[in-house]
Amino acid sequence: MVSKLAADCLFCKIIKGEIPSVKLAETAHSFSFLDIGPLSEGHALVIPKYHAEKMHELPDEFLADAMPVAKKIATALGAENYNILQNNGRLAHQEVKHVHFHIIPKPNAEEGLGFGWPAKPANMDDIKALGEKLKERL
Amino acid sequence: MVSKLAADCLFCKIIKGEIPSVKLAETAHSFSFLDIGPLSEGHALVIPKYHAEKMHELPDEFLADAMPVAKKIATALGAENYNILQNNGRLAHQEVKHVHFHIIPKPNAEEGLGFGWPAKPANMDDIKALGEKLKERL
Repeated sequence: MVSKLAADCLFCKIIKGEIPSVKLAETAHSFSFLDIGPLSEGHALVIPKYHAEKMHELPDEFLADAMPVAKKIATALGAENYNILQNNGRLAHQEVKHVHFHIIPKPNAEEGLGFGWPAKPANMDDIKALGEKLKERL
Repeated sequence: MVSKLAADCLFCKIIKGEIPSVKLAETAHSFSFLDIGPLSEGHALVIPKYHAEKMHELPDEFLADAMPVAKKIATALGAENYNILQNNGRLAHQEVKHVHFHIIPKPNAEEGLGFGWPAKPANMDDIKALGEKLKERL
């Protein structure tokens, strides 16, 4: 599948070169550049060359290409600690409505991604029941 | 490349079936199951069938397979808001030393992944200089 870009999308414009970026890498399916509002030095983005708002809306070949590109960036960054993050929906902290994978070095407790990890007590009966329900949809 | 599993790794044992899990999906390269310490209902994991601690240590075919599997899980979950998260290193909140991609529904402000987003003021000169440095390594 060829790339599909939108006229009025910030990230599509970056892919097309209509808006400048500090590009790091490009493949047939992906484009990578440095985030200009970094959480830490080296905070980069990998975006598919296909306009979709959420991850599950992307054709598989664009999804398949993103992580090998992120691996190249992570290797170049050389960070010992880092996070890969991809947010879907405003409530989940998505700001630009074009799928983007963050690569965020975590050099220390203050910089990089901060975490809230409100884990619930595990209820194995609930988890097993949910698993059965999901498997019917898979 | 065939899968490579470690004898003493919790997630390798789950892949091998030596430790039970609520499995959702499995491919030649990936295994997916429900997290038993969920941040929200439906919190699932996709793990490569290859023992590596950090994302950038994985062969590309395992990386390429993970996101299409995550897409299937996200579609089955049907969450409007969700996060894909993959942590590398203790400081970046990695708990099990086998690469895992979290799929975390974000149903409301309290449940799911919480965020700390300490964005820095952008210094475009610094970002451009870093881009040049990284491109030499790519």
